[in-house]
Amino acid sequence: MVGGGSGPAWQSGGVSVSREAFEQRDRDDPLAGRRDLFVLPDGVIYLDGNSLGALVRTVPERMRSAVEDEWGSGLIRSWNDADWYTAPQRVGAQLAALVGADADEVIVCDSTSVNLFKVLVAAARLEPTRRTIVTDETTFPTDAYITTEAAGLTGTVVSSVASDEVVAAMEAAGEDLLAVSLTDVDYRTARRHDMRAITQRAHELGGLAVWDLCHSAGVLPVDLAGCSVDLAVGCTYKYLNGGPGSPAFVFVAARHLDAIQQPLPGWHGHARPFALEAAYEPAPGIVRMLSGTAPQLGLLALEAALTAYKDVALDDVRAKSIALTEAFIELADERLAAHGFTVASPRRSAERGSHVALGHDHAYGITQALIARGVIGDFREPNLVRLGFAPLYVRHVDVWDAVELLVDVMEREEWTDAAHQQRNAVT
Amino acid sequence: MVGGGSGPAWQSGGVSVSREAFEQRDRDDPLAGRRDLFVLPDGVIYLDGNSLGALVRTVPERMRSAVEDEWGSGLIRSWNDADWYTAPQRVGAQLAALVGADADEVIVCDSTSVNLFKVLVAAARLEPTRRTIVTDETTFPTDAYITTEAAGLTGTVVSSVASDEVVAAMEAAGEDLLAVSLTDVDYRTARRHDMRAITQRAHELGGLAVWDLCHSAGVLPVDLAGCSVDLAVGCTYKYLNGGPGSPAFVFVAARHLDAIQQPLPGWHGHARPFALEAAYEPAPGIVRMLSGTAPQLGLLALEAALTAYKDVALDDVRAKSIALTEAFIELADERLAAHGFTVASPRRSAERGSHVALGHDHAYGITQALIARGVIGDFREPNLVRLGFAPLYVRHVDVWDAVELLVDVMEREEWTDAAHQQRNAVT
Repeated sequence: MVGGGSGPAWQSGGVSVSREAFEQRDRDDPLAGRRDLFVLPDGVIYLDGNSLGALVRTVPERMRSAVEDEWGSGLIRSWNDADWYTAPQRVGAQLAALVGADADEVIVCDSTSVNLFKVLVAAARLEPTRRTIVTDETTFPTDAYITTEAAGLTGTVVSSVASDEVVAAMEAAGEDLLAVSLTDVDYRTARRHDMRAITQRAHELGGLAVWDLCHSAGVLPVDLAGCSVDLAVGCTYKYLNGGPGSPAFVFVAARHLDAIQQPLPGWHGHARPFALEAAYEPAPGIVRMLSGTAPQLGLLALEAALTAYKDVALDDVRAKSIALTEAFIELADERLAAHGFTVASPRRSAERGSHVALGHDHAYGITQALIARGVIGDFREPNLVRLGFAPLYVRHVDVWDAVELLVDVMEREEWTDAAHQQRNAVT
Repeated sequence: MVGGGSGPAWQSGGVSVSREAFEQRDRDDPLAGRRDLFVLPDGVIYLDGNSLGALVRTVPERMRSAVEDEWGSGLIRSWNDADWYTAPQRVGAQLAALVGADADEVIVCDSTSVNLFKVLVAAARLEPTRRTIVTDETTFPTDAYITTEAAGLTGTVVSSVASDEVVAAMEAAGEDLLAVSLTDVDYRTARRHDMRAITQRAHELGGLAVWDLCHSAGVLPVDLAGCSVDLAVGCTYKYLNGGPGSPAFVFVAARHLDAIQQPLPGWHGHARPFALEAAYEPAPGIVRMLSGTAPQLGLLALEAALTAYKDVALDDVRAKSIALTEAFIELADERLAAHGFTVASPRRSAERGSHVALGHDHAYGITQALIARGVIGDFREPNLVRLGFAPLYVRHVDVWDAVELLVDVMEREEWTDAAHQQRNAVT
């Protein structure tokens, strides 16, 4: 499906750019070897790792052993013998290292939505005299719905404002600021908030800072400790490659762990779980964030997938992410603007996550035509072609080839095909 | 580990009972062939299917294809091409048939705990003028914790009473009765509530009936429609064999689906999910009960596991369940009472689910010694050996052999071994 073919060299920013230059970047890439850890189908340039990460080669055998050996043969004994019971903490500890947290500040459970509900209600209980939650009106819709519910149930109010008015809204709330709750990287545009500055301002105002790391974890050197973030959540099926619907994570800063009271307590988070007591008494530490029984198959797939991050320097990941997205934007300016594309993502790398959104009036059909040609990205309302660059497996030449194919799709007007007009894309 | 060996015949209730009689029951068992659908390790009598169901033979290949083909090769496209997106509804529809519900009244998602929270908060919104939730003080602890939280967040109160005082408590609440929320089958004793009568009484009082079916679904012919139940939840990893931590289900009677407002809404449950709108508008029907992204691996394992129920008559399942538990209780009276065991489960079959709890002062060590001999059950505080009889794969001779081995464990005092004294059992 993907015809690599070296395209012509041309001038870009005064520098001669060619496919060969991208091949050279791949040869110089300290992360180049990581791609071999993944299963990637032939003929595909996968630019949707920001939605569903690719399959890590360790996962199939781990799933086989989890299903056949641990479940099939071990049966209930595997809760102990195969260490299922401690998997939420164990995987959380591995994940903590990727988001700048201590091992005992992160646990894996439930979905991002459910975990966001837990931390927002818990935030209201930590700050019972404050009533305003400030959020970004362009946040992921489920985050908005959950925030509305958490506020409604705790008697607090949501101040939902434009991205660049968040600090002003926090200051307007002043002593009533309960928390600022933001998604670090915008799911559509990849616009980043300034986690450090916003968290600091929230603290100066006496409020808490809650961050959603769905589009950050594993691709940016998130520094929860360094930024003094209070609470955070995130999913694991994007850059962390946990698999479809893999369980999410929740972070609680150590300084809050003694006091935090989440609204969905379960026996696994009880101080004496096996006593099965009628009254709830939270366990010390992050385990109190657990609700029901952990989704083991998803947890164990995630654990196996995280081996792809072993000994990876997140600074290298970020550097490659910037190189990939910068190159894509540069090529978009050079070769795609004439076809009606605009760059909807921030041009300053520091303000951008690891995907790039291109605006186009025919974005939906273009995305489908591109997928038919083996370049997998996704469409986002109202008019965005969204392409994600997962540095562990996306190569520099993939950027070049994706643009080549996109130009070809436009020149052949493949996006006008009826087959590409029916909207049914997911996530 | 398990030595079958035919034991001596002796008199029981005037009938001569021997292992041969149990073998004959297996030959006459209309469900006998189902056992071949399961992977069961050699040397094990598995009496913990009420905690983690056994592995259905279809599951390993389904997991392999889900991981390698759908995730690995299909990548994000599988949300559409492999019908991942509709799995919660699809699997819910299959499950509905096992609990007496219509296909569009059940959806699979999240954990039982999270779903219970959703339905209790939703119940409070359906009946905003009523404030009392009646529950059973011996309910599963997480249910109690979640009920307390749901009540606290909705300004309602919990009336938690002894099992046999539930109806009186409902009547005491009278016009203030918001809902009765009960676990159908008690996780320790297997005591059943009278779903039909209690639901009817709740309705007469103007309240709602919420049922937790964790220990009922798949082993009893639950009749949600016939009983006019309003809301229900349950897990799928016990008798339904979905695997460790497989996603739970939630039932909403069709008559409530237009009005129900659950507190953890997500974009998958939105009327126009792919528009990703900032304001929530619930989709018509059961899909509005969805929160975050569905845990696909668990869902697909469950779907494969449910093939074990294809063309099964739940009346046959119930009849075998009663035969197994009655025989076990009978043998316990005959052979185990002398060793200090008491029967902690109801003796009347109509009042009992599909497990039997035996009380004993040394229950913990006995359970561990029994497991070491290949009879897998579990310990429950304070003094219970809990043994579950999953009729799709437990044989009549397993009942006989389990008692033989239990007698042997007692005669040899194996429960006194130090190795069996450390408490670490799970679920």
